[in-house]
Amino acid sequence: MAQDNIRIIVIGGGAGGISAASTAKGLMPDASITLFTEFEDVAYSPCGIPFVLGKEIANFDNLFLQTAEHYAKIGIDLRLQTKVTGINLENRTVSVGSDDFEWDRLVIATGFEYDEPEIPGIDLENIWYVKNIRRAMEYDKALETMKKAVVVSATPLGIEMAGNLAHRGLESHLIDEGGWLMSDIADPDIMEPVKESLEEMGAQMHFGTKVLEFKGTNGKVTSVVTSNGEIECDVVVIAAHKKPNNSISKEAGIELGATGGIMVDDHMRTSVKDVFAAGDCAEVVHGVTDIPIQGLSGSHAYSQGRIAGSNAAGNDRAYDPVFIPWGMMGGKVQIGGVSLGETLHKALGIPHVVAFSMGISRARYYPGVMRIRVKLIAEPGTGKVLGAQMSGGEGIKERADFLAFVIKRGVTLNELAWMENVYSPPIGALMEPIALAAQAGLREMAK
Amino acid sequence: MAQDNIRIIVIGGGAGGISAASTAKGLMPDASITLFTEFEDVAYSPCGIPFVLGKEIANFDNLFLQTAEHYAKIGIDLRLQTKVTGINLENRTVSVGSDDFEWDRLVIATGFEYDEPEIPGIDLENIWYVKNIRRAMEYDKALETMKKAVVVSATPLGIEMAGNLAHRGLESHLIDEGGWLMSDIADPDIMEPVKESLEEMGAQMHFGTKVLEFKGTNGKVTSVVTSNGEIECDVVVIAAHKKPNNSISKEAGIELGATGGIMVDDHMRTSVKDVFAAGDCAEVVHGVTDIPIQGLSGSHAYSQGRIAGSNAAGNDRAYDPVFIPWGMMGGKVQIGGVSLGETLHKALGIPHVVAFSMGISRARYYPGVMRIRVKLIAEPGTGKVLGAQMSGGEGIKERADFLAFVIKRGVTLNELAWMENVYSPPIGALMEPIALAAQAGLREMAK
Repeated sequence: MAQDNIRIIVIGGGAGGISAASTAKGLMPDASITLFTEFEDVAYSPCGIPFVLGKEIANFDNLFLQTAEHYAKIGIDLRLQTKVTGINLENRTVSVGSDDFEWDRLVIATGFEYDEPEIPGIDLENIWYVKNIRRAMEYDKALETMKKAVVVSATPLGIEMAGNLAHRGLESHLIDEGGWLMSDIADPDIMEPVKESLEEMGAQMHFGTKVLEFKGTNGKVTSVVTSNGEIECDVVVIAAHKKPNNSISKEAGIELGATGGIMVDDHMRTSVKDVFAAGDCAEVVHGVTDIPIQGLSGSHAYSQGRIAGSNAAGNDRAYDPVFIPWGMMGGKVQIGGVSLGETLHKALGIPHVVAFSMGISRARYYPGVMRIRVKLIAEPGTGKVLGAQMSGGEGIKERADFLAFVIKRGVTLNELAWMENVYSPPIGALMEPIALAAQAGLREMAK
Repeated sequence: MAQDNIRIIVIGGGAGGISAASTAKGLMPDASITLFTEFEDVAYSPCGIPFVLGKEIANFDNLFLQTAEHYAKIGIDLRLQTKVTGINLENRTVSVGSDDFEWDRLVIATGFEYDEPEIPGIDLENIWYVKNIRRAMEYDKALETMKKAVVVSATPLGIEMAGNLAHRGLESHLIDEGGWLMSDIADPDIMEPVKESLEEMGAQMHFGTKVLEFKGTNGKVTSVVTSNGEIECDVVVIAAHKKPNNSISKEAGIELGATGGIMVDDHMRTSVKDVFAAGDCAEVVHGVTDIPIQGLSGSHAYSQGRIAGSNAAGNDRAYDPVFIPWGMMGGKVQIGGVSLGETLHKALGIPHVVAFSMGISRARYYPGVMRIRVKLIAEPGTGKVLGAQMSGGEGIKERADFLAFVIKRGVTLNELAWMENVYSPPIGALMEPIALAAQAGLREMAK
């Protein structure tokens, strides 16, 4: 089989699928590349949806990054609204209903689906999941006449939705069983400024609260019954955990891991020859704990797609274990981190030292200066940094990128304590907050 | 001699001197520590002066970080307005006029002075140097009735002053012999957005222009005669290069280096036993070129003071070669970098590959998104990163800190091209601009 007759099929039109298809086409221009998606659109930014609903971003058109025509032009056969119903590994085909399509290499990028909670009333109207942009456009219209919203779960999406709905002017409630925001991954002291900011924006927090029932009238939700009382509402947003969308891969016999994600090796190869996976449907190795994880950011899905597409096109490109720099806005506060925080280190019983500082983002007299909390988690004895959590006004994303890069390479508190830093009153303080945290950590270790 | 009877004298009350004195006192509470400064104040931020003059910062009081009383309270004997006139290495004393003060350890932190240009009329009134805060307070009053300012030299300070005086409402001119802003250290493509921003703010640029004479009436400057014509003005700011302020050290016989800075080893020890130096008066080793340099940031002076003070108090603390992350606002644009840019690599004949990208600071549809130019300079063959220059809207300081840290540790374009990054629409783009530049560099190397 000549290289230029190779048929590559990609299932899924999100960041993973699109980058796999584009990368493969770029490397192997004569290959036949077909991308199937069950949805109406590709190449838009789902991460922007909460901000359009919150009227931070003017309209949904802004979220589209490429047109379907663009992909036709670069030679990718794009099949919109075409749901792949099966994968046949023996015949090397995928099925769309009764039609079969042959592949020499297959990239699975079927993404995630929400874990629908088993709560009475969950099927009522106006209980929403934020994912597809066409549905979101309908939500946007419906919100025009709505006044009260309940967001279930203080996940990253839940925090974005609670803040954005408050910003739009709705009475907004955020319900979570945990004791603080993002309590399964983030530390309470880091999240405290986010809580304050959301409350200032008018969102009401309900921690330690379980949803018991959704009540409705004429099939539409009208209230949420919780362990701490009933909250009236016109709409509920379920910001539940995401799980890998792998029913067809499972049926086909492709091996899944403990997370429910497709198991891949360091080349994004699945258990089956010539079949690759990328994005939220796959699980990858966590760099600090070696545990398989899934459900990372669009940036991760995009990178994994590049690797899968590159290798599907015959290259030999490895994907490293992930250290997961993350960041977001919570209310008007930036938060972020790398790997695990203090809470998870404690929960997992990993010995650790906590290095904390409260720094500032500019010279302390410069207008716009904001506080930055930096917490580094380090290995006792060696001072090797294991993780970080931060919140504050500016530069959290850039600091998370920095820390992920150097944690991967075994950085110690001592190295960070003596790091050189830019000092210029409008953009940086005399002391870098990361260095201050590391210095505090060294003092902690010397005790 | 018991440790607790040690007498440490520090000359200079800037960042280097203050941090040396504070660090020594912290480590050796019973030592006698005396700090001499010829000026009226210590522990203020001279870097903030241009922004008060520009009315970005409300008043000079904001720039004071600590009071003289604070230092008395922690046991430092602070001698304000006390000029040290000589150092006697044999008797181990410093002289203040006819008084001698004995030391067991001496820290020299005498800072910089401006290189006063030899231009006719340079002694006229209203030709200013921005350094001392009391003079700056007088300038601030004088500016109330002034309308036209000329800033000589497009150095970092010159750029800050030209922008700030325009911001204050003066007709502001910036004169430089070079072809672009900061032409001796920065690249023209990186500085282009700064030039545009300054012009938008109303500052007028005069490149390739030499100052020939200052003309005046009644002893006050009224115009600047240049190689490209005469510019009327009420005030001239000389933003000349800084040179180490080392006359007393030179007289005493302490060894100076090629830059005129005091030569120090990696413990900030001078050529003379028990004598240390820190800050702008000292020269340190450049990490990439191994060349001695001086005149870095307040953050560097502070760190060097910590090392000098720590070792003066009997510790054994090394100072690493510097990679010099730098950053500042030029007009309304952030600029920064690490080590040398393309221009200097060319000028010094260092073989190099240029890796350039134009990235963005947030999702491209998110309000407030701004362009970020990243240029990485790498070693041909290995792809080892040697330097960086950047300009753009957000996060330049944090990126410069990151790059300085990893360049010090031998990072390659390949590692940066595959770095993980935070993606969240309000704070970070899908693709990190540094990674995009590195990817462009890899393509350049593959040619």
